[in-house]
Amino acid sequence: MTLSMTSVATHSFLQTLGALSKILDKAAAHCAAKKIDQAVLLQTRLTPDMFPFVRQVQLTCDFAKNTLGRLTGEPPKFPDEEKSLDELKARIAKTIDYVKGFSDADIDAAAGKDVTFPVGPQNTMTLKGAQYVVAFALPNFYFHATTAYDILRQVGVEIGKRDFLGRT
Amino acid sequence: MTLSMTSVATHSFLQTLGALSKILDKAAAHCAAKKIDQAVLLQTRLTPDMFPFVRQVQLTCDFAKNTLGRLTGEPPKFPDEEKSLDELKARIAKTIDYVKGFSDADIDAAAGKDVTFPVGPQNTMTLKGAQYVVAFALPNFYFHATTAYDILRQVGVEIGKRDFLGRT
Repeated sequence: MTLSMTSVATHSFLQTLGALSKILDKAAAHCAAKKIDQAVLLQTRLTPDMFPFVRQVQLTCDFAKNTLGRLTGEPPKFPDEEKSLDELKARIAKTIDYVKGFSDADIDAAAGKDVTFPVGPQNTMTLKGAQYVVAFALPNFYFHATTAYDILRQVGVEIGKRDFLGRT
Repeated sequence: MTLSMTSVATHSFLQTLGALSKILDKAAAHCAAKKIDQAVLLQTRLTPDMFPFVRQVQLTCDFAKNTLGRLTGEPPKFPDEEKSLDELKARIAKTIDYVKGFSDADIDAAAGKDVTFPVGPQNTMTLKGAQYVVAFALPNFYFHATTAYDILRQVGVEIGKRDFLGRT
């Protein structure tokens, strides 16, 4: 691997989305063993004013999708309507397919491109592609992936850092 | 910002370490307002088999320090003996100074260098510098920074994603 927009963005997203998909398998096994309703797990939060688990996974997917979409054009919208871990796994798979759909050349060419993106409900920000990935996309992506993981740890799913890093 | 080892590693670390330092100020104000013993906060965990807050902050610092240290030579050890939020802020400041101590040229030259690092208590792994940063250092760094943030959110510190991104 050399350092490129593809290695920094695409490869990061694929590593962690793949890891998250396997983590959802362990969450499903945990729900079955402990008779936990998946619908309850999907609505579990670390604290009442944070997003629930389902939204953390959706946002992890969306930061990957929107990053590559904005680097190259306009990202599609994926509806937020998952009701089960299997449906969340399908959302991750759909996101992985989307991320894999770009050529390295298209992504790499966007390093110096102006990218305008929403920050909060009312504002936008414009950064060069490389800075957008490093200073905005990656911290947001990992923020939601980690918080999804943290919710599962708190409800007792047997996962560790190796799972988060995709090394299992 | 162009895409370089420096922009991907150094700039990421500095953005989030700076953000974390300001978050600790809000945590200290919260402790004072709610009469929470800082020593108790430092030992607070999301769940009993995860590291406490103090260790999450120390590990965030260490993934920054060790990444740049290993890219260029051998990182120093910083002792894990913080007992208060001020001492944790000092640990972050010391880490920021260390991170700023490298020239861009030194970091950028390490993209293709073999980097050997510990994974778990007994094993090591060797990756090229660029891959080490993208596939290992950043996910670990953001994992611990986010989990530190999540612990503070769970105990009621009034912070939001803007704080995590250093945009306050």
